[in-house]
Amino acid sequence: MKSIFYTRFFILLPWILIVIIVIDIDTKRLSVRNTASFYLSRLGNVQQRQVVRTTRTSSSSSTTASSSSSGRNATSLPVIYAITPTYSRAVQKAELTRLANTFRQVPQFHWIVVEDANSHTELVSRFLARSGVRYTHLNVFTPRRFKRTGMPRATEQRNLALGWIRGHRGSKDKGVVFFADDDNTYSLELFEEMRSTRRVSVWPVGLVGGRRYERPLVEKGKVVGWYTGWKADRPFAIDMAGFAVNLQVILSNPRALFKRRGAKPGMQESDFLKQITKVEDLEPKAKNCTQVLVWHTRTEKVNLGNEPKRQQDSVFIEV
Amino acid sequence: MKSIFYTRFFILLPWILIVIIVIDIDTKRLSVRNTASFYLSRLGNVQQRQVVRTTRTSSSSSTTASSSSSGRNATSLPVIYAITPTYSRAVQKAELTRLANTFRQVPQFHWIVVEDANSHTELVSRFLARSGVRYTHLNVFTPRRFKRTGMPRATEQRNLALGWIRGHRGSKDKGVVFFADDDNTYSLELFEEMRSTRRVSVWPVGLVGGRRYERPLVEKGKVVGWYTGWKADRPFAIDMAGFAVNLQVILSNPRALFKRRGAKPGMQESDFLKQITKVEDLEPKAKNCTQVLVWHTRTEKVNLGNEPKRQQDSVFIEV
Repeated sequence: MKSIFYTRFFILLPWILIVIIVIDIDTKRLSVRNTASFYLSRLGNVQQRQVVRTTRTSSSSSTTASSSSSGRNATSLPVIYAITPTYSRAVQKAELTRLANTFRQVPQFHWIVVEDANSHTELVSRFLARSGVRYTHLNVFTPRRFKRTGMPRATEQRNLALGWIRGHRGSKDKGVVFFADDDNTYSLELFEEMRSTRRVSVWPVGLVGGRRYERPLVEKGKVVGWYTGWKADRPFAIDMAGFAVNLQVILSNPRALFKRRGAKPGMQESDFLKQITKVEDLEPKAKNCTQVLVWHTRTEKVNLGNEPKRQQDSVFIEV
Repeated sequence: MKSIFYTRFFILLPWILIVIIVIDIDTKRLSVRNTASFYLSRLGNVQQRQVVRTTRTSSSSSTTASSSSSGRNATSLPVIYAITPTYSRAVQKAELTRLANTFRQVPQFHWIVVEDANSHTELVSRFLARSGVRYTHLNVFTPRRFKRTGMPRATEQRNLALGWIRGHRGSKDKGVVFFADDDNTYSLELFEEMRSTRRVSVWPVGLVGGRRYERPLVEKGKVVGWYTGWKADRPFAIDMAGFAVNLQVILSNPRALFKRRGAKPGMQESDFLKQITKVEDLEPKAKNCTQVLVWHTRTEKVNLGNEPKRQQDSVFIEV
């Protein structure tokens, strides 16, 4: 009698334990309120992502790359390749900090950071290494003759990133390419909208063109025009932060680049998009382009009027 | 014989399952790289946090509160109460978006958002409800006579938040109070530094006072002066983002408030800190005040020069 009792007890005990463990795991997930579940589920996804970093230096003196790639991730979500040109200035680390704080929560995310510099700066290298975001670090210096007002900016940096993608990704890779300038503000929803991009997708951008927002006008699921207050005759009246391109479109149009010669500021987006798509083929996102999920914020130039000419502090402090 | 085999099989099977489940959970945690582990561990913590929201309206017409409080969390980390005054403007939702993207990753975090408004605005209410951050939403309107240049800002909002804390937390609660303006940039490390605040802690702030940074000067673990380029004679030459106060210090000094009458801009921090501490008692954080973990960034006022006088778009879009 006693032996039967023990046998049953030892058979039941572990099953009870399994049920408790499974319920415990589920409860933690379900205890999150529905209204906040979108954001918190992002956090869960990131936790599962592997961040593996390898360093590689190309032969070109002006272009070096340290690439980070996770071993093929089990999940089948397309990877979002966000291309961020950046340059040395007082607010650079602050801008990169809040960008990384956002990007860290986007699952299957690959940050391509391109410095306008002759080599990797220590600040950006150190920052990226401990950012917790999968990344590739590139650099290319913009020739001085292109650094005048009235000239489009970050052309060389974006093109270098496109070149990197074309050299390191193939026809079997699933992904979406997005141009993420370093001072804009991004909601997490934006990345889930762009992830399903089949060819080229578009959406509204806040605080741009002298208006509260610009947006593609949509009728019956097709883009039929542009709501904008600035250069309305642009073929694609859209900001750099207002579109994403499927990786395979980037690969199958190997000569599509941002133009330096003959390009005018504000026309970079149109010049690029003309090479890969037509207005009628654009895929509207963000509820038929009626939601603002990204903002063209601009950070004030810092007043350093009281900065001493010579180092006065006893230590050097990175800012 | 057969019966013994089955018995053993059914005894062993569940134990094997338990081992597999436990190993699986651990592997997910350990697969994260060390260099990025700080940031990714933050994400894990947030996932475990419960976000429970309750709504309450006080009797005062100008002050309403919806409070969110998690049931006493099992973890014993002190709660960080971040007080953020905010006001309606073109970039408000963008600023709150990137703040929430940062705060969402801080464990045991409670965001006290105080609007300068006569009632909760719909924009902020909706935003907070789906932010994924534990929060309390308050509002108080700044009288017009205080809205002149040369007047300190957000005094009423910060004081209302201090009042809320004093009314809703007691001597058994563990916490740290921090003033988090809505346009600054915060690293996640900052919150781990301030979490151990016993009375009042201090650290450097980047891009402030016309310099790359301001910081408390530390000798033998004590604050002995201030590295600053602006009003060096301030008793506490520190920005609002440069200090945190233990919750019990806030509770045991119930009359400590930000002064409106007689206060000068730039003296708010000193006026407040004088009421609760002395310079020699300050606790230096961020490696003896040699690391910049928060930046006093300022967002450009938006150019809305092309915004139509009347609604031109066919839908209303929140920005």
